Amino acid sequence: MPISLFELLDAIGTVAFAVSGALTAMNKRLDAFGVFIISFVTAVGGGTLRDMLIGRTPVVWMRDINYVYLILISFLLAILFRRFFDKLRNSLLFFDTVGLGVFTLIGLEKGIDIHLNPIICIALGTMTASFGGVIRDILCNEIPVIFREEIYATVCIAGGVFYFILAYFDLPTNQLYLGTSSFIILFRFLAIRNRWSLPKFKAMS
Amino acid sequence: MPISLFELLDAIGTVAFAVSGALTAMNKRLDAFGVFIISFVTAVGGGTLRDMLIGRTPVVWMRDINYVYLILISFLLAILFRRFFDKLRNSLLFFDTVGLGVFTLIGLEKGIDIHLNPIICIALGTMTASFGGVIRDILCNEIPVIFREEIYATVCIAGGVFYFILAYFDLPTNQLYLGTSSFIILFRFLAIRNRWSLPKFKAMS
Amino acid sequence: MPISLFELLDAIGTVAFAVSGALTAMNKRLDAFGVFIISFVTAVGGGTLRDMLIGRTPVVWMRDINYVYLILISFLLAILFRRFFDKLRNSLLFFDTVGLGVFTLIGLEKGIDIHLNPIICIALGTMTASFGGVIRDILCNEIPVIFREEIYATVCIAGGVFYFILAYFDLPTNQLYLGTSSFIILFRFLAIRNRWSLPKFKAMS
Repeated sequence: MPISLFELLDAIGTVAFAVSGALTAMNKRLDAFGVFIISFVTAVGGGTLRDMLIGRTPVVWMRDINYVYLILISFLLAILFRRFFDKLRNSLLFFDTVGLGVFTLIGLEKGIDIHLNPIICIALGTMTASFGGVIRDILCNEIPVIFREEIYATVCIAGGVFYFILAYFDLPTNQLYLGTSSFIILFRFLAIRNRWSLPKFKAMS
Repeated sequence: MPISLFELLDAIGTVAFAVSGALTAMNKRLDAFGVFIISFVTAVGGGTLRDMLIGRTPVVWMRDINYVYLILISFLLAILFRRFFDKLRNSLLFFDTVGLGVFTLIGLEKGIDIHLNPIICIALGTMTASFGGVIRDILCNEIPVIFREEIYATVCIAGGVFYFILAYFDLPTNQLYLGTSSFIILFRFLAIRNRWSLPKFKAMS
Repeated sequence: MPISLFELLDAIGTVAFAVSGALTAMNKRLDAFGVFIISFVTAVGGGTLRDMLIGRTPVVWMRDINYVYLILISFLLAILFRRFFDKLRNSLLFFDTVGLGVFTLIGLEKGIDIHLNPIICIALGTMTASFGGVIRDILCNEIPVIFREEIYATVCIAGGVFYFILAYFDLPTNQLYLGTSSFIILFRFLAIRNRWSLPKFKAMS
């Protein structure tokens, strides 16, 4: 997978996350500033947290201004064509899942770059892909949805494990990336289709 | 604007933010420790987040202990003279607005110091001035008020843009600071007086 | 106190915090991933925040993978033997208090290592020991309990002050550690036994 394709997929994921964040925020009756911030943190909140935890500062969107432009455009599109995007939610899910795959890979990479333990790398991949939504939910005053319902983070964790299995067989980077992201995308669609969810605990009386 | 005046205004803003945080927290029925923490994050939470994001650590109040002393004194005054300060809320608003101006400038500066993109600098200014309140609201289990109602962050953003317009004309630092903070203070008072607010979105049925 | 004993107490505290986090999260009806994350942040959230604030990155659990293993095991034990641990809550409190003492000391140390002001060191100790619970409560969408009810952080602050008093008399490290942690453990038990709490504020009409 040449870098330029990877960057394109990164951009697609960023836009998908930013649009979904903006749609959620509009339904919470926030004002324009609030909607923009929620859109922003949904898109890059996970990568931001990752960078703060590993000391890679200034954080990602401060070094690559393109993320800011992408989110700004997504935000504007989302508020202008709200009804359109709301109907498209199912198609958006496809791009969202692309984001899940790419962001997990980016997070994994950042950990590998600085020689962290594979378990920590998997945690960084999962965080990059799924903690933007956690910060969004906290700002919207809700218990994070990925702690309650969806199989989401689990897909990233499994993808991370799959990555290291492939890496063990010395696959070239291209195939490693392609394999891992295909695995994540497939797993996510199966999870949605079959309504897989993790066991949930009950309050004890 | 000589440095000493700027430092004085910084101190005034810190005290105003700390007192307003303490008043809010007391109304949420927190205990003394909770009120102190809310007071603290309201005053320096924005600058703390900024420093973590740009990697300027140990963060601001760890390097300049005077912030801690100022907040401690503000906290004590706020709990001792609660009724007095509560009546003074409108006058406090004036000092709060001074804080808005100064904190925006400080945040802008920190970004410029390390040669970040002007857009990022404006984000850092806005964050320094307005995200202490966001952290306060999250800790108090509420959707941040600046995401819903007040024109607040917008004033900082406009102030940041104004700063770079002035800077484009090569104004000396004194006039740059004076111009930007006057702009912010004036804008904020007009916004309050005329009850300006950003467009708010409705939940979709 | 030889290092190995200190490490053992650190491990005991980590397990106690992780188990208590998992028990809390199960009662909030989270799924397995949510319970794991809550367990994780309860155990190392305070130290993580501390490390981000002082720029000690990658943060603690990324450099010492043993924390991750300990939390993973605690999490599994907590969900497998939930009923057992729930009955043991009172005994758990003892181990939890050991954690309070050890974590406060670790936080103090980190600040002293980089020559921060004693007040900041005490803040770091308090944060290390008690802000994991703050992050847990925020993620569970509740106002942090230590801002409302329990004397908890106050014990850490008092322990930090006690540490610097002992240090003033040039005690050897062993006695300094033993003295401070004994003080914290004793103070905490007295606080629980006598239901001590900080003054709480009322909402103003």
